[in-house]
Amino acid sequence: MPTFQDIKNAHKRIRPFIHRTPVLTNSSLNKLSGADLYFKCENFQKVGSFKIRGATNTVLQLTDEELTLGIVTASSGNHGAALCMAVSNRGGKTIVVMPNNTPQIKVDNVERNGGEIVWCEPIQASREKVLQEIMDETGAVLVHPYNDERIIAGQGTAAKELLEDYPDLERIVSPVSGGGLLSGTLCSAKEMKPGILVYGAEPAEADDAYRSLQSGEIQANKTTNTICDGLRAQIGTITFPIIQEKVDGIITVTEDEIIHSMRLIWERMKIIVEPSSAITLSAILKRKELFKGKNVGLILSGGNVDLEDLPF
Amino acid sequence: MPTFQDIKNAHKRIRPFIHRTPVLTNSSLNKLSGADLYFKCENFQKVGSFKIRGATNTVLQLTDEELTLGIVTASSGNHGAALCMAVSNRGGKTIVVMPNNTPQIKVDNVERNGGEIVWCEPIQASREKVLQEIMDETGAVLVHPYNDERIIAGQGTAAKELLEDYPDLERIVSPVSGGGLLSGTLCSAKEMKPGILVYGAEPAEADDAYRSLQSGEIQANKTTNTICDGLRAQIGTITFPIIQEKVDGIITVTEDEIIHSMRLIWERMKIIVEPSSAITLSAILKRKELFKGKNVGLILSGGNVDLEDLPF
Repeated sequence: MPTFQDIKNAHKRIRPFIHRTPVLTNSSLNKLSGADLYFKCENFQKVGSFKIRGATNTVLQLTDEELTLGIVTASSGNHGAALCMAVSNRGGKTIVVMPNNTPQIKVDNVERNGGEIVWCEPIQASREKVLQEIMDETGAVLVHPYNDERIIAGQGTAAKELLEDYPDLERIVSPVSGGGLLSGTLCSAKEMKPGILVYGAEPAEADDAYRSLQSGEIQANKTTNTICDGLRAQIGTITFPIIQEKVDGIITVTEDEIIHSMRLIWERMKIIVEPSSAITLSAILKRKELFKGKNVGLILSGGNVDLEDLPF
Repeated sequence: MPTFQDIKNAHKRIRPFIHRTPVLTNSSLNKLSGADLYFKCENFQKVGSFKIRGATNTVLQLTDEELTLGIVTASSGNHGAALCMAVSNRGGKTIVVMPNNTPQIKVDNVERNGGEIVWCEPIQASREKVLQEIMDETGAVLVHPYNDERIIAGQGTAAKELLEDYPDLERIVSPVSGGGLLSGTLCSAKEMKPGILVYGAEPAEADDAYRSLQSGEIQANKTTNTICDGLRAQIGTITFPIIQEKVDGIITVTEDEIIHSMRLIWERMKIIVEPSSAITLSAILKRKELFKGKNVGLILSGGNVDLEDLPF
């Protein structure tokens, strides 16, 4: 488990390569929720999501030898593009294994950030096979999207900034998928502000974290049939124990609730967030009694949305 | 013509009722344009556009007697909703005359800000007739959306903030419709920073300001067939002489150019802007030679967009 010192070191390390993102407030959403909401806008982050934090923190700790061998990942989402930028910043090369049905916008994101794409079939077995072949042939180093203490420490810097800017927060809500952001948030927030309550927000359609907590053991997702393309991953073996020890609850929400919140944020705040970000507001609106009258931080994790495929 | 002192007075008057909106930058759009762009985000302003500035400055100068008679306007757009909020802030009542085919989102905006709607037929004659009837019957005071020195002085506070925050700007681009925002911008910018160049950005499909400048006399719009629903008005008798005296040019752009810029801003900056705002970027991308290597301010005038009717 990363210590708070690890997170402070990560922050110092990555600071020249990331934005310190703004925190926005909105009086009409305060009224609607009955709480004072502070939105940490990682949708404005470089490459459009918080993922650049963990990716940069990890890549900056690779040796020159590792970098020469090349970096590889299988994420076609925000981690993939962020990793490409982090590696490019050190002058290295990233290979991203992507299913051959990946939307063009994600292909563009990887290419714009200097990544090379190797295609696979859109099934898990093909992805793992292609990834393994690349690693065997080139010796390339895999950077996992979340199950890595360096990644977790990097993601924890978002909550650190939020609490530095707003030390009076009493609650924080973070999305949960593989658990990198939520576990990093927990490691920062519980250290900086004893007594703060931290919740994860998760789609009911991909509720492995919720069920894992209930059963005390990692459970697989039964479906990943959610609009939150960033929240379909399986909770990790490193992230789960942190969440299990520290989290105050996981709030699951429906697809309709996610779309409703996304629309509220777009219309009232005039900012573009992914469904995976909007879910934090859904959780607050669903469980108002947990947040009523409190200062609540929401981590808006990213803003990479295909504008030609909106749910409204 | 408002003096800079009028604008300073306006700013002091309205400050408690408006946001000092942030100025954003974006490295990928800098690269694309070859200039350093500073986006003044009036899309984050109260009621979603700069219009609250002029409306508030005007309403705060009305007498209690005028307020008791009621306020009326015929704008179904951003001015209408902003005026409702400004009047509500003083405890008064606004009647907004609206065509019976107005999109629901604009109806909601007026109602959410405490306005009362009186319907008319969607033709100019009906609108004027209904407006006149209300004024005759109730003595209600008309607050014009732009052809009023108090409105112009209020709108000029946006450029004033922008230049206070970024005194090194060398160019400013503002949308132009009735001319309230552009003339206010000119009155601020040319006083605060002699030598700065200020351009208006106008749809080719509603190019009355461009043709009026060419001919030296106010010309009517030949069409208003533009996606920029905020830029269909006719240049005013008070705004035109200011623009004529001070502006360094009007840049007209096509509908495709506007939609392209709007998409660029949404995708790269992750903020929601109206087509009427995005046109400022279109003008810069179209006439790169005017802006190359310069510090350029863009006034993003508003963010009220119907999410169910996007051009992409």
